[in-house]
Order: sequence, then C-alpha cells, then structure tokens
Amino acid sequence: MIPQWIIERKRDGEVLAPEVIRDFVAAYARGDVPDYQMAAFAMAVYFKGMSFEETTALTDAMMRSGEVLEWSGLSRPTADKHSTGGIGDKISIPLAPLVAACGVAVPMISGRGLGITGGTLDKLESIPGYETNISTERFRAILEKVGCSIIGQTERLAPADRKLYALRDVTGTVPSIPLISASIMSKKLAEGAGALVLDVKCGEGAFMKTRDDARKLAETMIAIGTGMGRKMSALITAMDQPLGRTAGNALEIAESIAVLKGEGPEDVRELVLALGERMLALARQHSVISNQYSVISNTDYRLPITDYRQELEQCLASGKALERFTAMVEAHGGNPRVVDDVGLLPKAGVVAEVVAPCEGTVCRVSADAIGRVVLMLGGGRTKTVDAIDYGVGISHLVKVGERVEKGDVLMKIHAKSTADVETVKAMAMGAVEFGESVDDTPLVYEVM
Amino acid sequence: MIPQWIIERKRDGEVLAPEVIRDFVAAYARGDVPDYQMAAFAMAVYFKGMSFEETTALTDAMMRSGEVLEWSGLSRPTADKHSTGGIGDKISIPLAPLVAACGVAVPMISGRGLGITGGTLDKLESIPGYETNISTERFRAILEKVGCSIIGQTERLAPADRKLYALRDVTGTVPSIPLISASIMSKKLAEGAGALVLDVKCGEGAFMKTRDDARKLAETMIAIGTGMGRKMSALITAMDQPLGRTAGNALEIAESIAVLKGEGPEDVRELVLALGERMLALARQHSVISNQYSVISNTDYRLPITDYRQELEQCLASGKALERFTAMVEAHGGNPRVVDDVGLLPKAGVVAEVVAPCEGTVCRVSADAIGRVVLMLGGGRTKTVDAIDYGVGISHLVKVGERVEKGDVLMKIHAKSTADVETVKAMAMGAVEFGESVDDTPLVYEVM
Repeated sequence: MIPQWIIERKRDGEVLAPEVIRDFVAAYARGDVPDYQMAAFAMAVYFKGMSFEETTALTDAMMRSGEVLEWSGLSRPTADKHSTGGIGDKISIPLAPLVAACGVAVPMISGRGLGITGGTLDKLESIPGYETNISTERFRAILEKVGCSIIGQTERLAPADRKLYALRDVTGTVPSIPLISASIMSKKLAEGAGALVLDVKCGEGAFMKTRDDARKLAETMIAIGTGMGRKMSALITAMDQPLGRTAGNALEIAESIAVLKGEGPEDVRELVLALGERMLALARQHSVISNQYSVISNTDYRLPITDYRQELEQCLASGKALERFTAMVEAHGGNPRVVDDVGLLPKAGVVAEVVAPCEGTVCRVSADAIGRVVLMLGGGRTKTVDAIDYGVGISHLVKVGERVEKGDVLMKIHAKSTADVETVKAMAMGAVEFGESVDDTPLVYEVM
Repeated sequence: MIPQWIIERKRDGEVLAPEVIRDFVAAYARGDVPDYQMAAFAMAVYFKGMSFEETTALTDAMMRSGEVLEWSGLSRPTADKHSTGGIGDKISIPLAPLVAACGVAVPMISGRGLGITGGTLDKLESIPGYETNISTERFRAILEKVGCSIIGQTERLAPADRKLYALRDVTGTVPSIPLISASIMSKKLAEGAGALVLDVKCGEGAFMKTRDDARKLAETMIAIGTGMGRKMSALITAMDQPLGRTAGNALEIAESIAVLKGEGPEDVRELVLALGERMLALARQHSVISNQYSVISNTDYRLPITDYRQELEQCLASGKALERFTAMVEAHGGNPRVVDDVGLLPKAGVVAEVVAPCEGTVCRVSADAIGRVVLMLGGGRTKTVDAIDYGVGISHLVKVGERVEKGDVLMKIHAKSTADVETVKAMAMGAVEFGESVDDTPLVYEVM
C-alpha cells in the first residue's frame, strides 16, 4: 500500500474499495501511516465526501482498531443514546437510569466538553468522588448490578478514532458528515449496545446548523448501524436555545436530579421521554430478534410507543429512576447523598442575577452565547488539557416564549468572583432577546 | 496564531492576508506548526487555490526561511534559468557556460531527478569528480572566476520549501499551481539572480499537460518574480518527445558537450539559444536598471534580441562557451578532459540497437516511455535515496518527422546487462510510432 496514492485517489474523487480503507486505517492505527498523510486524506474527504460503503468501511476499521464490547451474557437487552452535542444538554444523566429502571441496560460511553459544548463526563465528575475512568470489568459489573453506567472512552476502545478525532480537531477537518458519522458510530458500535437512538441537534448552538445537514448526518449513521445489525433511530431536535434552565456542570447535575424526581424543566423531561421510549422499543425488538433474552415476552416489543412512555413516566413517578441514578453514582464511587442535598455539589463563589431591562416576550435565548459565557466563567475547555471549574455556570434561565416584566430574573450567573460576573454580564444579557410574540417551534423536529 | 483556524479559513475559500501566511510558514519552518497541519493546509490549497498576493506571500516566507544570496558585489550582471522538467532536458548544462561566456554570470541551483524526470545535478555528477554539494563561499568564488556554477540546494537555502516539498510529495498535494510556483520561485529568488527565464514544459512528458495550465503556471511565476524586482520571462516549450537524442546521465553530458562544440541536435541548440538570448537581454536590463555595473554601456541593453542570438552563436563557434564549461568542471573538481574525450564518462556494459520494424515517418516518440526506460535501466530514482547508474540510458534516438527505412536504428539502449536490455526492449520499441506524415509542431510555443 502506497499511502499517497490512496490520498490522491480520494483527492480526485474516486470511490475507494472497502479493503483499501480498511488497510489505510489499520496502518494509521499501527503508526505506519503518519498523521500528516491522514490529515491530507481527511481534508480530501472533507472536499470529496465518501460513499455510504466507504463510510461504513471507515467506521468498521476504526471500531475494530480496539476492543469491541459484547453483552450477550447480560440478563437484559441493551440500548444507548448519542447526542451530537448542544448547550445545556444533560439528557444522558437522567435518561440512562430511567431506561435502566425499565429493565433495559444502558452501557454508555460519553465524552468530555470542548469549546462551548459541555460534556456528560465533566458533569458527572462534578459529583464528589464520581469516577468515569474505570476498567471494562468494573463497567460490566456495574451494568449487571445497576443497569446503567456512564464512563469515559477507554484507551482500548476505537483507538484509531481517538487518534483521528484529535487530529481532525487541529487540522480543520471536523465538519465532514462521513468523518463525523464514522467517528461517532465506531465508538458507539464498539460499545456493543443492541439499540442506539441518536439525538441529532440542529440549530444555532449545534454543529449542524440546518435541518438538511442534520437529516443527512442522521441518515448516514442509521444506515451504518443498521448495516451492522443494530436497531437504530434518530431524533432531529432543536438546539437554538439551551436545553433546560441550567448550563454548567454541577448546576446541570442538580437539574438532572430534579428531572429524575419528576420535576425540572419541561423540555428536558420531554426529550428524556422521547428518547427513552425509542430506546425501550428498539432494545426489546433487538433482543427478541436476536432471541437471547427469555425474560422478555414475545408480545412485549409490540407495545405501542405510547405505552413505553407511560412505563417511563411511572418509573419517574415511583422514584425507581432516581433510585437507579443513586445506585449508579454510588457504584462509581460518587457521593450518593447529592441526590437529597444538591448543596453537596461544588458551588461558585458568587451568584448574580441578570434582570430584564424591559418587559416583553422572550423570543430568543442564544445557546451559542450562553455556551460562551459558561466557557468564559471557567466551566468549559478551550484546549483538552484545561481544568474545569465545576461550580460555575448559568441557572434560572428564561425560555423562549416566556413573558417577563422589567426587573424579572432572566438568569443567574454563578461565578468565581464578581470580576468574572462583570466580564460576562454584557454577553449574558445579550443572549436574551425580546419581542412582541414568538412562533411556537417544536423541540423534536423529526423522528427517523 | 491558531493554526487550525488558518487551515479552516483556507478550506472555506477565504483569501488570507500576507502576514497570516508569513506567520504560518515561519511557524512551520521553526517546527511550531507540525507536518500534519501543513499537510491539511496544502490539501485545502489544492482545492481552493491561492490569490496572487497569497502565492507571493508564501514564496517570500519560504525564501526568507533561509539564506538569501546577493550578488551586488559581483563584477557582472546575473541571470538564471529554471525548467519545470522533462525527459532529456540537459539544457542547463550547455546554457550556463554559454551565457557566462557572454559576460552574464549564472548562479544556478539545480535539483536531482525523481521518477521519470532526470536532474541536472545527477547528470553533472556523472562527470568523474564533479562536486555539486559545495559551500556558498566556493559557489561565489567559482561564479566570480568562471562566470557560472551549477550546484545543489544547500540546507540553508529555502529550508521551509525543502520541508514542504518533501511533505507534498507524500500527501498528494504536488499538483497545485500556487504551491508549485511558490516552491520554484522561493528557491530561485533566494539564489539572487537579477534575471530569471523560465522554461515551462508542456505535453505528455511534462507535469503540465495542457498549454493553458503551462501558461497559468508561467504567469504566476512571472508575476511573483516581477513583484520582487526581478526581470522575468517564460517560454512555453514542447515536451512530447525527449529533448535531443539522448536520455540518461553521462549520455546527456556527452550530448551537451557536442552542443557546446557547435554540434549536437538541432532542438537542444535551438532551445539553448532561445533561453540564452532572453537571459542576456534581461540580465543587462536588470543591471542597467539597478545601475550597479559600470562595465555595461548605457545602450547595450537596447540591442534587439536577434543581436543577442548572434552573440551566443559566436561564443559557441569561437569555443568560448566550451572553454567556460571546461573551467566550470575543473573548478568543481571534475575531470576537464571529458570535454576532449567523452569516453572518460561512465559507460554501460551493453549497447543494443532498436531498429525500425517497418518503413515510415516517425510521428511520435513518447517522452514518458523513454523516461520510464531510463528509470528501469537504473538511470533514475523512484525514491530520493536510490543510487543511480550514470552510464545507462538511450542514445541515437530518432526525432518526430524523420523518415526511416525498415532496419534503421531508432535508438541505442545502454544497459548494465543484456537481461536489462530484454526487460526494456518492448517498452523502448513501443515509444516510437510511425505514420505517413506528421504535422510540424513548434519547439517553443510561446514567449511570455
């Protein structure tokens, strides 16, 4: 294999054979194809794209570059969710224990925040003691015992993707649908869950700005997963304003706990239920098809999806979901008492209110601006090595469509110091726009 | 400076400010921008191109990454020639001493062969003892004494270009007009000659296959050089059949010596004169404009170009050009007696004739095929580290338009062994095509 010939063929728009891509990625994983050749290849892919077969071959090669988990020995069907990332997106945190409470195991491998987008791992690590970096054996044990576990990507899982992802981040080759799809799917398929529901964000605060791009990304990922024997679904959801009323690590854990108690913001609850009902349905379909789990009745998977929603709502109301969350925190070494007392979570030194300068209807809350505020407060990272301040962020955020009077609280800024509050105040204020009225836009645009 | 932002801006088709390119290249030369970022940048340039200002900034930054030579202390005006490379292209070897004989100094930095294209340095090194890797001080001394010197690129000359060129070679980013222009011009401008004549090859055996591409490359390089205060000209010349009747290192030295004696093939002589007359004219214009050389009369540069040709022809006829060549060989440590006895040059073990299978008019001699034959005989390199067999190659090659009878010699193969002759024979035979008649195509398509 002459790597530059492969680069040239992709540059010239050729469709590469699956084995060519497989060999190229394997050589990259071994270090025989250096970063500079992969960077040129990735830029050629950015411009020339990849066919579905090429993308699948890339996904498969990256998945097989490391350990591929397998859950057939587990006593329950498995499902996972992946979000393409947004501001205030804490969905995984209430969702995983809720789905686990309904008898579907959730082996979830999450990421850290970078730039304005937060990461589930960082949020969980704001719980004192919570360890996200655990062995596969412990991951398996927690999954068996609790039903859900959220951990970080281990060194052994899709190492070629880790390497390529880090490279794309510094070579301007991130925004490519085949590369994004292969990156996400190689990790998610290596996790081994039988069902996977994608939350593809779309809007100002998301990576995909248009419905068309979001749909294209979703279609590509669904096709890859289906081709590899998984039950797949995708929701295209709005990411113009932040999800919920908080942004910032510990603040989002507190909000997640509220949702698990049947409280919390309507949009977070709604998205948790919409994703959860599909996870339940698909995991049970997958388990029936693969005929592995005697615990599932033959008719169970035929339940209409509304019944799954009812099941989820009951688990929230009964406290079963919260109980799974508490067990997961404890199993990960975290302090389970945060569930009863969110005051045990890291706190910011200063809390300042931002108030409405006039009366009106909130017609826009910029997810992007709120993300930047959190980043500036120290709640995120500009580089992967940056430390995070877990306590800072935004709470009590107004939502689009709400009516406010002059002087009403638009949000609270949680900062290290009053100086930090001053630094972000104008940007925070500018994130909220007022008008006379606002069109009602849906949270979930489309289910695929 | 955040390198990935610069890559992203180029990827998105932005025109970068000169200082942005300057800083990026300077950081690359220092090692602060790694190869993988430069590879992604180069691929983005391949797809999105560069404006003239961007290309100039890139050239300037690469030139300034190392030593920039300066000849104002020299007693003569200076000129150089650069060819984009072809098969049998030995033009520099007779041209440099001929122009020197006319009183214009030629400080020429040449390259080695790679692939089917030969390199002037390799050809010169076939002369026993000739050293191409000499210090700048010795280069300057030879130039002052002899009037011409042909050496290899030193470590100190445009090191950023050396680095980028090696990277482009393995990342599929060679065929980009701005990158080619900047690479050539950064080296040629660092050489410091006041005048530069480009021989942009066009055709089957050249990098540029079409007249349009060749013209575009020439225009870009002329604009860069002119913008940097040099007198520039370019000839677009044919590279469909090899230049002259030889291809192979020592064989081309012998042919060059023949040209310097007023003999040799018509096409080589014609191209030497066409390039030489422009070198003389431009060097003298440049020296008058920069007003440095009292030895040049005020009217000299106004001579019509035909008079320069006469001057060159006289230097060939009088033996002055050959005498400069002999002096250059001697100054470089080479054996000057090769001039009188080309039998002192390396020889191949076997010489075999390829004869015409039928009578007819030669309508095509494939430069590409002849280049491949020489490469297969061991006269070229597939990798930069390969050793070269100086004696092998092709001589007595027929030219397009010549009439042959069945059994006439089409070429002679100079090989290490009869086995090697057998290996290349079919390809050599296939390089020549016959027909009834042939259109007369010019050697020089265009002068810019």
